[in-house]
Amino acid sequence: MISEKMIPLMKNNSAIRMMFEEGNKLAAKYGRENVFDFSLGNPSVPAPAEVNQAIQDIVKEEDSLFVHGYMSNAGYEDVRETIAQSLNRRFGTSFHAGNILMTVGAASGLNVILKTLLNPGEQVITFAPYFVEYGSYVRNYDGELVVVSPNTVDFQPNLVEFEEKINEKTKAVIINTPNNPTGVIYSEETLQKIAAILEKKQKEFGTSIVLLSDEPYRELAYDGAVVPYVTKYYRNTVVCYSYSKSLSLPGERIGYLVIPSEMDESANVFQAATIANRVLGCVNAPSLMQRVIKRCVDANVNLEAYDRNRNLLYNGLKECGFSCIKPEGAFYLFVKSPVENEKEFCEVCKQYNVLVVPGSSFACPGYVRIAYCVSYGQIERSLPAFRKIAEHYNLV
Amino acid sequence: MISEKMIPLMKNNSAIRMMFEEGNKLAAKYGRENVFDFSLGNPSVPAPAEVNQAIQDIVKEEDSLFVHGYMSNAGYEDVRETIAQSLNRRFGTSFHAGNILMTVGAASGLNVILKTLLNPGEQVITFAPYFVEYGSYVRNYDGELVVVSPNTVDFQPNLVEFEEKINEKTKAVIINTPNNPTGVIYSEETLQKIAAILEKKQKEFGTSIVLLSDEPYRELAYDGAVVPYVTKYYRNTVVCYSYSKSLSLPGERIGYLVIPSEMDESANVFQAATIANRVLGCVNAPSLMQRVIKRCVDANVNLEAYDRNRNLLYNGLKECGFSCIKPEGAFYLFVKSPVENEKEFCEVCKQYNVLVVPGSSFACPGYVRIAYCVSYGQIERSLPAFRKIAEHYNLV
Repeated sequence: MISEKMIPLMKNNSAIRMMFEEGNKLAAKYGRENVFDFSLGNPSVPAPAEVNQAIQDIVKEEDSLFVHGYMSNAGYEDVRETIAQSLNRRFGTSFHAGNILMTVGAASGLNVILKTLLNPGEQVITFAPYFVEYGSYVRNYDGELVVVSPNTVDFQPNLVEFEEKINEKTKAVIINTPNNPTGVIYSEETLQKIAAILEKKQKEFGTSIVLLSDEPYRELAYDGAVVPYVTKYYRNTVVCYSYSKSLSLPGERIGYLVIPSEMDESANVFQAATIANRVLGCVNAPSLMQRVIKRCVDANVNLEAYDRNRNLLYNGLKECGFSCIKPEGAFYLFVKSPVENEKEFCEVCKQYNVLVVPGSSFACPGYVRIAYCVSYGQIERSLPAFRKIAEHYNLV
Repeated sequence: MISEKMIPLMKNNSAIRMMFEEGNKLAAKYGRENVFDFSLGNPSVPAPAEVNQAIQDIVKEEDSLFVHGYMSNAGYEDVRETIAQSLNRRFGTSFHAGNILMTVGAASGLNVILKTLLNPGEQVITFAPYFVEYGSYVRNYDGELVVVSPNTVDFQPNLVEFEEKINEKTKAVIINTPNNPTGVIYSEETLQKIAAILEKKQKEFGTSIVLLSDEPYRELAYDGAVVPYVTKYYRNTVVCYSYSKSLSLPGERIGYLVIPSEMDESANVFQAATIANRVLGCVNAPSLMQRVIKRCVDANVNLEAYDRNRNLLYNGLKECGFSCIKPEGAFYLFVKSPVENEKEFCEVCKQYNVLVVPGSSFACPGYVRIAYCVSYGQIERSLPAFRKIAEHYNLV
């Protein structure tokens, strides 16, 4: 009955999602306050007040048929122009509405651009650790995901191996900065090197290689860290953006693609992506949320709350003897497992009602991801549990 | 640069959508009130007042993190249960939350279930005239759309040809009732016959054939016409529903799949479809709109407005000498072209600033679709233009 392509997906269903469901079960059993669920990247800081205000104002002020109606499949023109101008102000770019395609979040944006570009058998490169769904997205279009192994020293990408893995079948490269699961931000130097390698390889093979920059965590950067804007370093870049984290709207499914005018066949890519958005069944990004973005384009969640969480958890774990680099962005800590098999470590954590995700879910075994987008109180309450886990492993 | 599969889609971009863009251009030139755009199925009756009230109440009353956050990929459990109970009340079914999967509209629901079911080379049958995007949806998963030719007597499906076209590769059948573009409702007798044919063919080939009932127009039925609930006639039915028309929310992308417990491998199909919803990039149906559905599950648009339009336009066209069956549902008239080549007829209409869609866009040349989801005033103002067109063809 089920398509053969779906069978492996069913067998290997998302560990993160299964953990999320398990967390709900444990919470029902022990009480929500006694379960320390760090599994899902579900924002804990509410949407800025202006978002909910905008929703109310739009419903009162704008025509209902317009707000909830169809528009061009690329999205409302005025919303797209507003986003372009905001990017131009912030990053010195020169986009216009014709470069912005509204999507059902970044996950859908990635699907749209991969459907636009990929022929069966073509390759997409990404860097471990990486968001495991990339593999599914690429396989949706019969492409092959090629994974560059992790550099566990500082979690900047392994560029030597990257260059070796590019060949004439390489159609795209996915990067994700600030990174899920490490919280690392790719430096300007890293982006310059990636661009130089891609330029060289494009010449060598006479191909176009598209750099897909998956940026749901762009606005979540701490201590004044700068997240360089990728289109400025490499012409054939497509940005996949989402408001899931910057405005705490993950359930609303609202984001966009940036398809710069400078990229090869830009107008064709934009038209094809608009059609892909339609035929994949999204048709258009949710309309009310598009209108909200127009009014809240420069809003942002309260970053301080995540920053407090980051410091409390990072310091707490270090004091217990855990090993971890301090993340500059996103809302994850990527912690070294005290034992080689990190799934065993996850099971021990679960005995203390602590839920964390094994690094093998991100193609980086030996580590676990701890999502600190939770209440400050949960982190406080969890620290004694982490200490007991550390004692279990004689880390303290 | 562009995927080879996208090239034909770009060459043959949706005639309806192109007409929509053209309508906007004509309106800019001649003024909106002088252009009679009947091209797009974009609701003209606003969402019921309780929808916009619910949006405001939810934002005020419910927790922002909950309203805008992630939930299970199938959707909020309480929303799904509410929908199941509403269906049970109205149609005497016995669904529960586990049969309802929230989707990004019916177009996405169709994509989700086709991805769940189809292997490359498998066939999906539909009946002309049909919504042309079905072909794209099926080809997304390397399936083949097999089209049963139209029965232009009463636009009920041609069941003799249907039976002939079923073979061992037939995985699914798509029906759409009330129908776009004809407005015809499939009778109980038609559904019983379809079910009997499918039961017989399942036995003959030892296969499961899934009947996909695409139902965005279910609530748009006039003169007390009954739209039979398809799961009651055939076990292997999946309903693809959308609130785009029943609540006038086409831009919001909210709908659901019904996967009945009685169908073959029901639990597997539900799980696979939930995963398909995620990996296609939708992740989940827009969250605020899910919460709205919970509060407005039995709401409906003001049907009288469409009914007035239907009568005014139908009678007006008949008086001019046009030939057309009176639609029982949806918001379209499917009018016989006065000349064999209906595209030529569409061009003549355009000279009078009347935009209609050629039937060949629905695999039924010789007819045109007139979407009467417009203002009553537009229909009134358009009647003299239709009369001139009729005079052009000596119909009057």
